[in-house]
Amino acid sequence: MPLSTFIEVNSNSHFTIYNLPYGVFSTNDNEKKRIGVAIGDEILDLSVICHLFDGLLLSKNQDVFKEESLNSFMGLGRPAWIEARQTIQSILSTNNSVLKDDATLRKRALVNRRTSTMHLPAQIGDYTDFYSSIHHATNVGTMFRGKDNALKHLPVGYHGRASSIIVSGVPVHRPWGQVKPDEAKDPEFVPSKLMDFELEMAFFVGGPGNHLGKPIPIEQAEEHIFGMVLMNDWSSRDIQKWEYIPLGPFLSKSFATNISPWIVTMEALKPFIVANPVQNPPPLKHLYHSDDFNFDIELAVSVRPKDSQKDYILSKTNFKYLYWTVKQQLTHHTSNGCNIRPGDLMGSGTISGPTPDSLGCLLELSWRGQNPVKLGNSGQTRKFLVDGDEVSITGRVKAL
Amino acid sequence: MPLSTFIEVNSNSHFTIYNLPYGVFSTNDNEKKRIGVAIGDEILDLSVICHLFDGLLLSKNQDVFKEESLNSFMGLGRPAWIEARQTIQSILSTNNSVLKDDATLRKRALVNRRTSTMHLPAQIGDYTDFYSSIHHATNVGTMFRGKDNALKHLPVGYHGRASSIIVSGVPVHRPWGQVKPDEAKDPEFVPSKLMDFELEMAFFVGGPGNHLGKPIPIEQAEEHIFGMVLMNDWSSRDIQKWEYIPLGPFLSKSFATNISPWIVTMEALKPFIVANPVQNPPPLKHLYHSDDFNFDIELAVSVRPKDSQKDYILSKTNFKYLYWTVKQQLTHHTSNGCNIRPGDLMGSGTISGPTPDSLGCLLELSWRGQNPVKLGNSGQTRKFLVDGDEVSITGRVKAL
Repeated sequence: MPLSTFIEVNSNSHFTIYNLPYGVFSTNDNEKKRIGVAIGDEILDLSVICHLFDGLLLSKNQDVFKEESLNSFMGLGRPAWIEARQTIQSILSTNNSVLKDDATLRKRALVNRRTSTMHLPAQIGDYTDFYSSIHHATNVGTMFRGKDNALKHLPVGYHGRASSIIVSGVPVHRPWGQVKPDEAKDPEFVPSKLMDFELEMAFFVGGPGNHLGKPIPIEQAEEHIFGMVLMNDWSSRDIQKWEYIPLGPFLSKSFATNISPWIVTMEALKPFIVANPVQNPPPLKHLYHSDDFNFDIELAVSVRPKDSQKDYILSKTNFKYLYWTVKQQLTHHTSNGCNIRPGDLMGSGTISGPTPDSLGCLLELSWRGQNPVKLGNSGQTRKFLVDGDEVSITGRVKAL
Repeated sequence: MPLSTFIEVNSNSHFTIYNLPYGVFSTNDNEKKRIGVAIGDEILDLSVICHLFDGLLLSKNQDVFKEESLNSFMGLGRPAWIEARQTIQSILSTNNSVLKDDATLRKRALVNRRTSTMHLPAQIGDYTDFYSSIHHATNVGTMFRGKDNALKHLPVGYHGRASSIIVSGVPVHRPWGQVKPDEAKDPEFVPSKLMDFELEMAFFVGGPGNHLGKPIPIEQAEEHIFGMVLMNDWSSRDIQKWEYIPLGPFLSKSFATNISPWIVTMEALKPFIVANPVQNPPPLKHLYHSDDFNFDIELAVSVRPKDSQKDYILSKTNFKYLYWTVKQQLTHHTSNGCNIRPGDLMGSGTISGPTPDSLGCLLELSWRGQNPVKLGNSGQTRKFLVDGDEVSITGRVKAL
């Protein structure tokens, strides 16, 4: 039976009763950070209605909704997340009077989303970024190194910088850095000339953390995946090129990483599961799972030049093009015994599709600057980003 | 005038009144974590005597010593650290009766170090590891890649895993991982065969954090360097070899990193400053400092095999052999605008000296396993570590 809510939800809204993403917000009249759920143009303030979580698991843990980040709620684990979703869907449903018919409570619990300020949804203990698109890896490998052998055997990943993860909308400074544009010249310290975005998604880790030395088997991986955000892994290609051998990207990435403020839960994404990518060679046994855990999420990245009112779409791609599933990423990450904690963030790596118009970064779209990308009919082109560009990443599933 | 303390300090002790390192400890009869300072065989419990910090800066901030980690104290900045050191030296001095002659306070404030349990001294937000030994980089580069060009131009570094940093004494599990021992064979998931230590030191970041987008100039770097620990950056060489291209070491490192529990402050290390390494080519202007900020710290690494009572020294080296100073590391790290926070940890990278007996890891000491290293006259040798080996890293300055 379809669900209906008494909240007005525009037919084009991302925030239906089937979505219910979690975020952390504050308002002009209350600067305290609170946990909320987006519904239509409103935010349901969970700190105000936490007494309504009367299920078996959450009735004993209502205080997690009074905190300033989602870490404790994430740490409760998947049965509690499912219970919370059911409770919130019930509270918002047309048939339930508890909030609908209590004008005083409704006034306190529902906040205008447009005038709220969003914050990072969790304290991110560790941030990892994977390299899970075989199309991206093949393109970049071809440009710089030749074929990377390991990518079809394991989800290559690296540790990123947690401190510089910021929420969508926070402006980003063009970094200075040491670059060596010409083999013959000495390196110099200058503002990066080759600024790029990377279209990614990322998942937040939840559930009780594993102990150091105790891997999480793939059968249990889902219990540790709370939900997903969109991510822009800003990259300076000139800094990256000079610094990345032998220890990988460092200052070319650590100046800023934006994530969307709303975490869409895996439960909300489940109706959009599609077949896993075909993996050949087959993954080693500890990385193999037979159940489908790939997601049909349409993604797009656009640029709005300074002083323009128009977003020019540069690429359309899909989460489903990734070669490794999030379960495989998480299992690989802990396979050496590494401990993960609620609130850890794990990025997908650049999501490039198989066609030239589905590539996830300008490095690929312009093929290292050789083929400038047109911004619609504006007459403008981009090899890399210019000052004042506003980059937007959107994700969308088909309506239920 | 030399300082003297009423606490008995063995002439061979690391913990004189000139050292006074900070740590976090608990005891059997009080499991709460407290901040302490090591002196002889005792720990001075700062939570008990925090009311004695009556200086200009700390009299308003005594509560930092009641916390369970050093982050807040680190965040106060260098003038407060200097004031704290002066206060503690005064409290412990022979001439000061406030603690010496108050038997009740002394009984509460002084705790037996041998029977205390040490914990991580800070919540480590982000952990970075540099690659600052030109000897190590040249050796490893020669083995695997040929010359790494960038190392004399910038302190190459990478983001490490903060969650798996553990304090000295916590046992480490040999990790499983995907390896490919033979070009012709398929990769396999097995326990690592090539387990190694890396002898490193690391510094804790302090002072107020910088804002994202605002680099810390080298003239201010010292204000953000709180103190140093010894570090063992455990490394699995077979996992590392298969995973590290193109994004650097990941699971080959993230299974465990041990640090010493006591943070020796930069103030305590200042008498041991020696000339900076000769840097040729000269560093770019933003990385140049004329004042000496290199340290003469004698380092050694030893192995005690399972069921043995003897530590066999494998290598003796010195912190002063590093090519980049900690000021240069910190300045480079923030040069792109990356924000750092009190409690961040920055490792030196493996500290190898110029001679064959001063190399900081077994990979180099055994030259990739080709030349097994003798454990004294025991008849035992090591190419890499075997199960049950206990690895100790010691650091020592010349006595004042």
